[in-house]
Amino acid sequence: MHKTQKPSGMPIHKYRPYQDQIQVDVPDRTWPDARITQAPRWCAVDLRDGNQALIDPMSPERKRVMFDLLVSMGYKEIEVGFPSASQTDFDFVRHLIEDNVIPDDVTIQVLTQAREHLIARTYDSIAGAKQAIVHLYNSTSVLQRDVVFRTDKQGIIDIALEGARLCREYEKTIPDTTVYYEYSPESYTGTELEFAVDVCNQVIEIFEPTPERKVIINLPATVEMATPNVYADSIEWMNRHLAHRDNIIISLHPHNDRGTAIAAAELGYMAGADRIEGCLFGNGERTGNVDLVALGINLFTQGIDPEINFNDIDQIKRTVEYCNQLPVHERSPWAGDLVFTAFSGSHQDAIKKGLEAMEARAASEGVGVDDIEWTVPYLPIDPKDLGRSYEAVIRVNSQSGKGGVAYLLKTDHSLDLPRRLQIEFSGVVQAKTDSEGGEVTSDQIWSIFTDEYLPAVQSDSKWGRFELLATRSTSEMTGDVELAVRLRDGETVSDTTGHGNGPVAAFIDVLRGHGFDISLYDYVEHTLSAGGDAQAAAYVELQVDGERLWGVGIDGDISTASLKAVVSCVNRAVRTRTVAGELTAV
Amino acid sequence: MHKTQKPSGMPIHKYRPYQDQIQVDVPDRTWPDARITQAPRWCAVDLRDGNQALIDPMSPERKRVMFDLLVSMGYKEIEVGFPSASQTDFDFVRHLIEDNVIPDDVTIQVLTQAREHLIARTYDSIAGAKQAIVHLYNSTSVLQRDVVFRTDKQGIIDIALEGARLCREYEKTIPDTTVYYEYSPESYTGTELEFAVDVCNQVIEIFEPTPERKVIINLPATVEMATPNVYADSIEWMNRHLAHRDNIIISLHPHNDRGTAIAAAELGYMAGADRIEGCLFGNGERTGNVDLVALGINLFTQGIDPEINFNDIDQIKRTVEYCNQLPVHERSPWAGDLVFTAFSGSHQDAIKKGLEAMEARAASEGVGVDDIEWTVPYLPIDPKDLGRSYEAVIRVNSQSGKGGVAYLLKTDHSLDLPRRLQIEFSGVVQAKTDSEGGEVTSDQIWSIFTDEYLPAVQSDSKWGRFELLATRSTSEMTGDVELAVRLRDGETVSDTTGHGNGPVAAFIDVLRGHGFDISLYDYVEHTLSAGGDAQAAAYVELQVDGERLWGVGIDGDISTASLKAVVSCVNRAVRTRTVAGELTAV
Repeated sequence: MHKTQKPSGMPIHKYRPYQDQIQVDVPDRTWPDARITQAPRWCAVDLRDGNQALIDPMSPERKRVMFDLLVSMGYKEIEVGFPSASQTDFDFVRHLIEDNVIPDDVTIQVLTQAREHLIARTYDSIAGAKQAIVHLYNSTSVLQRDVVFRTDKQGIIDIALEGARLCREYEKTIPDTTVYYEYSPESYTGTELEFAVDVCNQVIEIFEPTPERKVIINLPATVEMATPNVYADSIEWMNRHLAHRDNIIISLHPHNDRGTAIAAAELGYMAGADRIEGCLFGNGERTGNVDLVALGINLFTQGIDPEINFNDIDQIKRTVEYCNQLPVHERSPWAGDLVFTAFSGSHQDAIKKGLEAMEARAASEGVGVDDIEWTVPYLPIDPKDLGRSYEAVIRVNSQSGKGGVAYLLKTDHSLDLPRRLQIEFSGVVQAKTDSEGGEVTSDQIWSIFTDEYLPAVQSDSKWGRFELLATRSTSEMTGDVELAVRLRDGETVSDTTGHGNGPVAAFIDVLRGHGFDISLYDYVEHTLSAGGDAQAAAYVELQVDGERLWGVGIDGDISTASLKAVVSCVNRAVRTRTVAGELTAV
Repeated sequence: MHKTQKPSGMPIHKYRPYQDQIQVDVPDRTWPDARITQAPRWCAVDLRDGNQALIDPMSPERKRVMFDLLVSMGYKEIEVGFPSASQTDFDFVRHLIEDNVIPDDVTIQVLTQAREHLIARTYDSIAGAKQAIVHLYNSTSVLQRDVVFRTDKQGIIDIALEGARLCREYEKTIPDTTVYYEYSPESYTGTELEFAVDVCNQVIEIFEPTPERKVIINLPATVEMATPNVYADSIEWMNRHLAHRDNIIISLHPHNDRGTAIAAAELGYMAGADRIEGCLFGNGERTGNVDLVALGINLFTQGIDPEINFNDIDQIKRTVEYCNQLPVHERSPWAGDLVFTAFSGSHQDAIKKGLEAMEARAASEGVGVDDIEWTVPYLPIDPKDLGRSYEAVIRVNSQSGKGGVAYLLKTDHSLDLPRRLQIEFSGVVQAKTDSEGGEVTSDQIWSIFTDEYLPAVQSDSKWGRFELLATRSTSEMTGDVELAVRLRDGETVSDTTGHGNGPVAAFIDVLRGHGFDISLYDYVEHTLSAGGDAQAAAYVELQVDGERLWGVGIDGDISTASLKAVVSCVNRAVRTRTVAGELTAV
């Protein structure tokens, strides 16, 4: 079998290999033998590098949600903006300081170019903070010197040193704030190593690092230009050549142009770095900054504490999607909707056997299954450790192609199920049909769907514990909605009133009064048709007493549809529990 | 500044480091000094590993579209299914062979487990093919031996050897087909290296490799369990220990659980592998197989011919999204909608200067700008080389937060613009407003939007060259639609008829008659409200005489809205050309 691939005709003459541009020769590298044994210092730059790469940058309210999320997860160094370049960023930093939002053990970081009026404005922005990192940068690459700054190496050094000196000057204007420094030779991966270390070492002298006040030297892969081992080599080289190394924190800032930012961060950390800057789920310019979620959970899978809490990954994801107004992909490491889903029959079988073997082992050792090592084929970690259930783990897709479940519901019933509901429902179909062989018709799928999620239309029997009989929603434009509902609960009909920022929240408030612990995870709606008889479908994902599941509502009124979806979900939760109870009783 | 990160409380006791499970000791590794200088053999497994991981697996028709795409891009080894496990896959392989679809220089590959009835069925499936690769696998990892197969090492070897012997038997049943072999010790990354090489070497003896009939040994990271350098070390070790090395093709099959599959493939290739299996845009089980698009274009950026043609990346993406029914993420390397978009002012400025410098250099050398090296900051490659324009490169997001362009159009006008249209329109806004400083109101944005995309509602003046006056669409359920339109073209009104598989295609057919070279790139529609006066919005992305752009149509009838969107787009193309012409004339 000979290789029959042919030249593509693509214009390769336009590109020069990285190694012919920048020399990185470290034949005595040691990082390939290194092992990662502890978490680096993390710095989350979602509010700066991430935010500046959004089509719709965050509003002050979304910024605050992101900041609070990062703090709650355990990030202690957070780049909160570029206050001298953006009034919105400036105002946000002032809000954090003046409203006393920053915990004592959290240090905010602000970016600035090395120009006096920007530096002055930067210090204005952080006045009153207990501590802050001023992050000074200027571009150092061969290309930027050539075409952007049109200056030589000395010109670039002068920009950096002048900026550093001005920082020390303006530092005196805010004596009550402890100022730490970070310097980035921006476009580092396009910079000769000897020149990069020269600039950094001269800047370091001005910042006068001490053990109590270390200086951060951040080495960004502003553009990812080579395989990640080359970045690691360069970090090992810098690690050997930076002055005052004991009082320097080497920081990595990998971008993901080639799709290898996670690897670059890990190998660079093995090569001697101390700190990693990135964004949740890899948001950031172009292909993004390195993904902090992947990096953190990668450590976790090796029994290393990431020092960041990922135990409710869906909540984290939902919050980030809200802030960034960008989706997290279905296959995003550790967090995508499909990453713990096994479709292949042999994978499903192996997972089942692995779980059984763990249970048997735990029983024989007389301990809980959570006390022993996780060893399940095709599942590198226990989804429960990230707050996900096993429900979504094993799913069939036996109905292939145009017979597919989601396809049929969309084509024949105009229902466009959210991805996680598709996964949940394919499990319902699997449970009710012979998963091997036999075709399932569209009618059968619709029957299973209505039986599972919707009250029977042509039946007198009551579907589920709750039924919505009447509603009245009142808003006085204060942001609060009052919802009065007439609800059948079993055989009892009662009128109740709830409050919330919308009808769904108000209705959840009502149901809490019926003894449920409910929180909302997702809400999606769409219209079913464009005509005068337009129906709307609503889908809600709730956590009901610890169990995560979906409900569906269909109605001519979108608001009613959403309340019906909540009823559907709660009725399903009650039903599951009843069935489980019956099984236990047998 | 001390590290203030705290223990997360996550259950790290459940996980054991990879290095404590599998020993990979290669202190004399040479791969970190290797340089990639040519493309590997590629094998695209979209139709097998990719397909089995879809919620909605491909229909026969979607499979065929994927196969044709892979062939057209230049892939010569294509895994087309698991025919013994799926009737759909079996039928598809038969279709390819019986309908003579496979080019002479393309080799199909089929997967099989090492069990006799599956092997027999596999050979039935490929009968009549000129050549085919039979891909035999069985699982070899410590964990799978333990909990799934409950057998010792010899038991696993027996499964592999019996499978290989059966392959040689059944090979005789199809003497007119040249059969090549691939063997995978599945779950390789969880297998002791000594055992993996032992199994492989024994299987190799049965397959009897020769220079003309090499045997592929595929070493899958079935689950990605460690940093990518460890995978590379293991490949270098296997490279040294495999028997008949000259007649063996070492193949990589990295999955992406840790987000480092691209790095694993690249470092593994540097470590001595010959071949890489993966999927376009990284589809595949869980977090996916390694992304063939990223790997190929990564080579291209180094001046190495990927031997795969990526020169119309949007068309490739659109086709794959259709086949997989999964989106390609906005930040997917080289292909996402946002990867060539610079929002930051300083990035925009540097790009502009870089492009200008290239033009000056080309002029001074008396050559075209496409004849010189590409050197533009923040743009590692020329988007044009992938069939993308510069239009989307430089975009503002100056309207941040709740003032954001997309947000305002959605909130105030119920228009949910597709991502690429958002990017295009933000450029229109930028061109018409002062991008620095001043706020743009929602009314101004709406005015710019209607002026750009929609005919004026309250004006008697004519908007654009074309206007749709009447339509009649006829379908006889044959898949063909006949569309009769009354169209104003300048001052002339005419009635014309076009055909297509839908009204949009038929209308494009009509417009081709007016001298335009038009192809459809994207089409999205949604309803604006749920009430009885429901309006629908349609968005189309067309390529009109080489220029890619969007049009928008709004109407009570969704079909009319889509035709209006085509008119909007073509009118914009005409207008752009006129403006460009005027500028040239000045």
